[in-house]
Amino acid sequence: MNQLIRNSVEKLSAYTPGEQPKDRTVVKLNTNENPYPPSPAVMENLASATADDLRRYPDPTSKKLCEKIAELHNCSVENVLASNGSDEVLSLCAAAFVENNGIISSFDPSYSLYPVLAAIRDVKYKPVALSESFGWQEPEHDEASLFYLTNPNAPTGLLFPKEKTHAFCQKFRGVVLMDEAYVDFASENSMNFATEFDNVIVARTLSKSYSLAGIRLGYAVGSVALIEALSKIRDSYNVNYLTQKLGLAALSDRDYHRATIEKIKATRSRLSKQLEECNFTVIPSEANFVWAKPNLEDAEVIFNALREKNVFVRYFPGIITGDYLRITVGTDEQIDRFFEALQTINKRRDK
Amino acid sequence: MNQLIRNSVEKLSAYTPGEQPKDRTVVKLNTNENPYPPSPAVMENLASATADDLRRYPDPTSKKLCEKIAELHNCSVENVLASNGSDEVLSLCAAAFVENNGIISSFDPSYSLYPVLAAIRDVKYKPVALSESFGWQEPEHDEASLFYLTNPNAPTGLLFPKEKTHAFCQKFRGVVLMDEAYVDFASENSMNFATEFDNVIVARTLSKSYSLAGIRLGYAVGSVALIEALSKIRDSYNVNYLTQKLGLAALSDRDYHRATIEKIKATRSRLSKQLEECNFTVIPSEANFVWAKPNLEDAEVIFNALREKNVFVRYFPGIITGDYLRITVGTDEQIDRFFEALQTINKRRDK
Repeated sequence: MNQLIRNSVEKLSAYTPGEQPKDRTVVKLNTNENPYPPSPAVMENLASATADDLRRYPDPTSKKLCEKIAELHNCSVENVLASNGSDEVLSLCAAAFVENNGIISSFDPSYSLYPVLAAIRDVKYKPVALSESFGWQEPEHDEASLFYLTNPNAPTGLLFPKEKTHAFCQKFRGVVLMDEAYVDFASENSMNFATEFDNVIVARTLSKSYSLAGIRLGYAVGSVALIEALSKIRDSYNVNYLTQKLGLAALSDRDYHRATIEKIKATRSRLSKQLEECNFTVIPSEANFVWAKPNLEDAEVIFNALREKNVFVRYFPGIITGDYLRITVGTDEQIDRFFEALQTINKRRDK
Repeated sequence: MNQLIRNSVEKLSAYTPGEQPKDRTVVKLNTNENPYPPSPAVMENLASATADDLRRYPDPTSKKLCEKIAELHNCSVENVLASNGSDEVLSLCAAAFVENNGIISSFDPSYSLYPVLAAIRDVKYKPVALSESFGWQEPEHDEASLFYLTNPNAPTGLLFPKEKTHAFCQKFRGVVLMDEAYVDFASENSMNFATEFDNVIVARTLSKSYSLAGIRLGYAVGSVALIEALSKIRDSYNVNYLTQKLGLAALSDRDYHRATIEKIKATRSRLSKQLEECNFTVIPSEANFVWAKPNLEDAEVIFNALREKNVFVRYFPGIITGDYLRITVGTDEQIDRFFEALQTINKRRDK
């Protein structure tokens, strides 16, 4: 043990993000990026940034950006916090709402960062097992101070019904962080919980539906008291100048946003249908990825075989997740290439 | 008390960053920004960013950037961590190196963020008072797990002698974070401590000498074990794509960097001399600001009078700091305007 380092940090296994290959010929269906470019307004705004803008500190409050977010969600600017990716919201919540002897909870499986955030904060993590089909399971751990609730869930893509999540937020005594990273691809969302309940924060990101994973922009919406608490403990200049500027441009182009989402939903239907035809069990997805189980072959074998053919999807080892693959909804052309690779693998197997 | 929020966070007073006025006609000498633009290579690199770059996640390890930093400081890439401003390094250190019953220490006066970081981490903060002239005072709190040592110090601009800091790093049993935000304007630096000692991290920023406060880029250099600990607990994609790209461009243009620093040092000499002629006591500065005490008038009165004339400097209320003003070294033209405003104020007083 290194005496200089906190024990809990020494023991910690860091979160492993999906692979980011340098090779741009890879069919990259592994990290839920949007296959379409961001709104043209983003590139126009990038071109208009000046050297003087970069020289100065950014607005520490991200005011213009937060005003736009407040307008979009019909709330006050005091209900909004901008962040360096929504990951920052998640880690700020662990620091702001959980005492040293507190507990963090989430469903299992869900975003694999949550137990890591509890370990970083050096507090107990209690997972709540989902039903066998990954559906809603009423959490019993009401002694937790913070519950990370991803909806639609990752890596399953399943949307928990709003009546269930609403009743849970009402009952739960701690803070519920509704992680809505994928909600723009879903049929309903819980943004109204953020102002209805004192104990709910809704987190969103521009990484998925706005095609801006590269700029790192997320935000939180919640009661003034909770947002103030997060704001007190964040870094003063957590969101840089360019991210504020480009994020504002993307959020302002509503037509482009809607159109991109519709394209992805159409490809998602096609991907799901075709996977079923290829003998996969497909969980109904309301996200920009599909969680599917190959019935005739080992998921890990397919994952590796696809990888050899330069098609990257995501595989999560483990008892609950190890039978499935998570496939990001790419362009139709990328999905064509995915199925071509899959067919070659199947043929090889059937020989 | 709000039961949902951690007690320590409820009680916390957040750090107050310097004012960022929207009005660009303000003579802005209040937040130690560099008055000169960043290297032209930065704007060239900005122009070459594509929509596809923004769509994808950035490199989670900031590899190219860290390789360049390692090359500059003659160390290995494993000794380097890139961060969302050097503020992120400072807060990661509090999370990685201090147990719940631990102590954080720093000199007083120094960067006023340090006690806030201890409060966020909910651990004891023990300040070490400097000598009356703000000079080195051997810290006695060797029970601290983490010592934030700013050199040159802020807000004084005074450089602590390397023999003193070296002996302290050798003696201290916890981690010493050498915060070298201003060191590029100084006559010596401690980067070699980062690889000489197991318990030292040197933090740098591109906000000051590289004129890039807007992009939020800092970095840490230290032993592999300490850097690994920080890396485990940071957000996976803490540095966005554009910041990685523009930071790399700025770090690669050595001639421009040197030339900008020389201009600022020249103006610093002139500012210091002229302040003394105006009956200020001036602390010898090795930073891009000057810490000076008006002998004939109250510092706060001058601060407010300057502000009315659209000249912003920084004033820190308090027994130790309240007699002084911190004036950022601007362009010569900005310093002309500062002295013009000062003369008008003096004339008004002398009537």
